[in-house]
Amino acid sequence: MNATRTRRLGALFYPGWEMLDTCGPLEMFGNMPGMIEIVTVAQQAGPVRSAQGPEIVATYGFDDCPRLDLLLIPGGMSSHDEVENPLMIDWLRRRVPEVELTMTVCSGTELLARTGLLDGRRATTNKMFFAQVTADSPRVKWVKEARWVEDGPFVTSSGVSAGIDMALAVIARLAGAEVSEQLALATEYEWHRDAGWDPFARLHGLVA
Amino acid sequence: MNATRTRRLGALFYPGWEMLDTCGPLEMFGNMPGMIEIVTVAQQAGPVRSAQGPEIVATYGFDDCPRLDLLLIPGGMSSHDEVENPLMIDWLRRRVPEVELTMTVCSGTELLARTGLLDGRRATTNKMFFAQVTADSPRVKWVKEARWVEDGPFVTSSGVSAGIDMALAVIARLAGAEVSEQLALATEYEWHRDAGWDPFARLHGLVA
Repeated sequence: MNATRTRRLGALFYPGWEMLDTCGPLEMFGNMPGMIEIVTVAQQAGPVRSAQGPEIVATYGFDDCPRLDLLLIPGGMSSHDEVENPLMIDWLRRRVPEVELTMTVCSGTELLARTGLLDGRRATTNKMFFAQVTADSPRVKWVKEARWVEDGPFVTSSGVSAGIDMALAVIARLAGAEVSEQLALATEYEWHRDAGWDPFARLHGLVA
Repeated sequence: MNATRTRRLGALFYPGWEMLDTCGPLEMFGNMPGMIEIVTVAQQAGPVRSAQGPEIVATYGFDDCPRLDLLLIPGGMSSHDEVENPLMIDWLRRRVPEVELTMTVCSGTELLARTGLLDGRRATTNKMFFAQVTADSPRVKWVKEARWVEDGPFVTSSGVSAGIDMALAVIARLAGAEVSEQLALATEYEWHRDAGWDPFARLHGLVA
């Protein structure tokens, strides 16, 4: 991959999006000036309320969202409703194949899985609602114990805070590990570099 | 403290606010339904652009912000400019004494320090710009090595991601450690429970 050109990262929002799912990764991607440009997108442009209350502004709607290089799909308790939203799934089915990398956090993986584009791929999701998220997508090769999983153009991560580790792993892949190390140092973040580090799979009873 | 009544947490925003400084703590406080109500406030109500690009909506301006129980002050590269904003410092000087707990993340501590209300108190801030943040507030008892510091009604934390650990510590104080444990488990977050855990003080050259 080309480490020098600016990539446009689209952060997807829908009502009930989980704040840290999105803002953790955006903290890291947003501190790479000249390398990453962040844009926000939702079904309709305008404020989109989070699960925690605060609203973020989606600059673009599905209709006018520009070409994206990277896509970030957050989770939230409402993601289980959004999989039944045909406008959401149709937009993802159309746009995901066009981007270089699609990243999901937590139950955001359920939205990507519903498109069918993850079929035959290895993927993970949050450990608290693992059974619920994975139930309707049996052709995905679900990984129970992983902080994040990379398979081709898809990087799927575990619950909420796992998105930060996934973001740093993706940044290492795009721009070099030293960039991720600098970001972790500047944000005083203890980066989990091992995609297999996942104490939560056991804590949530998925593995013995 | 009373663990059962709903407390109103005001999250302060200003142009250039650092996303994870605010959204990390809000992820935790925002998942305590019935115990915490989050409101957003800025000098003027409306969208406020973050350092990373995305805009959050401030529901209240300084003029109409309701009574708060808790106040969260984020950092950002622009906080060093905001300390010269008299409307900001005057608002903090007026409102901070009214709240039960004021929390700062990263260089947000500089804003609180500029009010003079931290004088004689122990406090910390981010480790990358420690010298810059602390220079103009010599009467604060600055702590170089700490993830967060509690002193009376003030809880100040280290850089960016430290706000999450501080939030969980405050939640443990307000609602019990088991609530913080459940939040960390649900968000798959490796909680640093020790306020003295701070490898970044050494990594940034503040201690040997």
